[in-house]
Amino acid sequence: MTGAIKGRLWLVPAPLDHGCASQVPLPEVMPAGTLQAASQITHWICENAKSARAYLKRINDLSPLALPVREQHIVELPRAVHKHGDHDGSFDARALLASALLGHDVGLLSEAGMPAVADPGSSVVRAAHDLGIEVRPLVGPVSLLLALAASGLNGQNFAFVGYLPQDAAQRMQRIQALESLAVKQGQSQLFIETPYRNAVLWDALLKALAGPTRLAVSSGLTLAGGLTRSKSVKDWRALPAPITNDTPAVFAIGR
Amino acid sequence: MTGAIKGRLWLVPAPLDHGCASQVPLPEVMPAGTLQAASQITHWICENAKSARAYLKRINDLSPLALPVREQHIVELPRAVHKHGDHDGSFDARALLASALLGHDVGLLSEAGMPAVADPGSSVVRAAHDLGIEVRPLVGPVSLLLALAASGLNGQNFAFVGYLPQDAAQRMQRIQALESLAVKQGQSQLFIETPYRNAVLWDALLKALAGPTRLAVSSGLTLAGGLTRSKSVKDWRALPAPITNDTPAVFAIGR
Repeated sequence: MTGAIKGRLWLVPAPLDHGCASQVPLPEVMPAGTLQAASQITHWICENAKSARAYLKRINDLSPLALPVREQHIVELPRAVHKHGDHDGSFDARALLASALLGHDVGLLSEAGMPAVADPGSSVVRAAHDLGIEVRPLVGPVSLLLALAASGLNGQNFAFVGYLPQDAAQRMQRIQALESLAVKQGQSQLFIETPYRNAVLWDALLKALAGPTRLAVSSGLTLAGGLTRSKSVKDWRALPAPITNDTPAVFAIGR
Repeated sequence: MTGAIKGRLWLVPAPLDHGCASQVPLPEVMPAGTLQAASQITHWICENAKSARAYLKRINDLSPLALPVREQHIVELPRAVHKHGDHDGSFDARALLASALLGHDVGLLSEAGMPAVADPGSSVVRAAHDLGIEVRPLVGPVSLLLALAASGLNGQNFAFVGYLPQDAAQRMQRIQALESLAVKQGQSQLFIETPYRNAVLWDALLKALAGPTRLAVSSGLTLAGGLTRSKSVKDWRALPAPITNDTPAVFAIGR
């Protein structure tokens, strides 16, 4: 009655330098335990096979891989999942876990940071639970949490809400709704934006928010030149924007 | 007109084994870069000086400290901050940062995980920003984020709300309000409980939540025997509780 012993699903974090000009040395941001565990995995689910291979090569320099990169089994999440996320139950990821049912450990990887946090992947994790596959998260950098800790905003009650609307009027409304939550419930509100819209979002925030609201922004965390700045909106209005349009940033508001 | 060059405020994560029977080897969960940075800090702000010293001894075994443990300058956050948190502006932490104004790098440390996330410390970070002291978060384990990633719940929109009320009727109301947010806004809701009340909370969750709601729990993450389980409430009602009253747990609900 018993089948093969199932493999596990490992959630493997990636460094935060994806698409950046310079790379961070992995030992700066990755525990040796994470690299060692990742080096033993030979079956992968990822957003992009090319960057997964590049990351595996970096791991191999520190912790030799169980199989050469070209022999690793790598499958990509479908395009629709990249675009629209995969948390609404519309994508059934169980077929992606066939290797785990056959006994192979499988690694889930995103382009930067923790898979399934501010990134696709949750459909794969849900499928693992539904199939009785053990899920093991590994420690690594998570830009949201580094930004929250460094913001000085309330970290005992907070929300991450993803991207704000692109339409200017809708964005204004959304910012004010988030500010209202921050003020009335004391819940810090975090959000992100595509880098080339950073400056537009910054202007909208300074327009929409009340003077006493605290606005924090982090960019390039864990990288050279990374920074976090946190001030009242009133103070920000007298200063130049602390971010540019070329680096991913995390924004946070609170009181 | 220029004063001394200011030190920086480093946010130093701690392993998640505080108060646990066995310790996790630091290289499993801490990047070498984090340990190296921590080993050079000689001025600390922490919740408890005794556990800060114990942690510094563990760091010293891997990355020699710049000063012997007994010569390190360690100050504790006031008791009131431990009990009531420090995000409401009632505690002015600027005096704690006097060493940074004199040019010393200062480390902020909590008992487990990232300081100022699900733990006190945000008053110190706010004070650093207000004093123009650079804030640098270091990578390490964060139980909330590991639990969220491993839950399979929506990680692109989520909230952490801390502890639920202890009064049974109020707790029931709060659980249903959180479920309503999870269902209507697709926002995963995370919360924690003091370990000895885990079983009581679990029973309340199975009573209060609707059958189709997904309920996930993680306990002992990064430790031997750590686990994450995630199922519909309907399925959970037919199963024994997956957690006991002796390990810190993170709970999450979503659809």
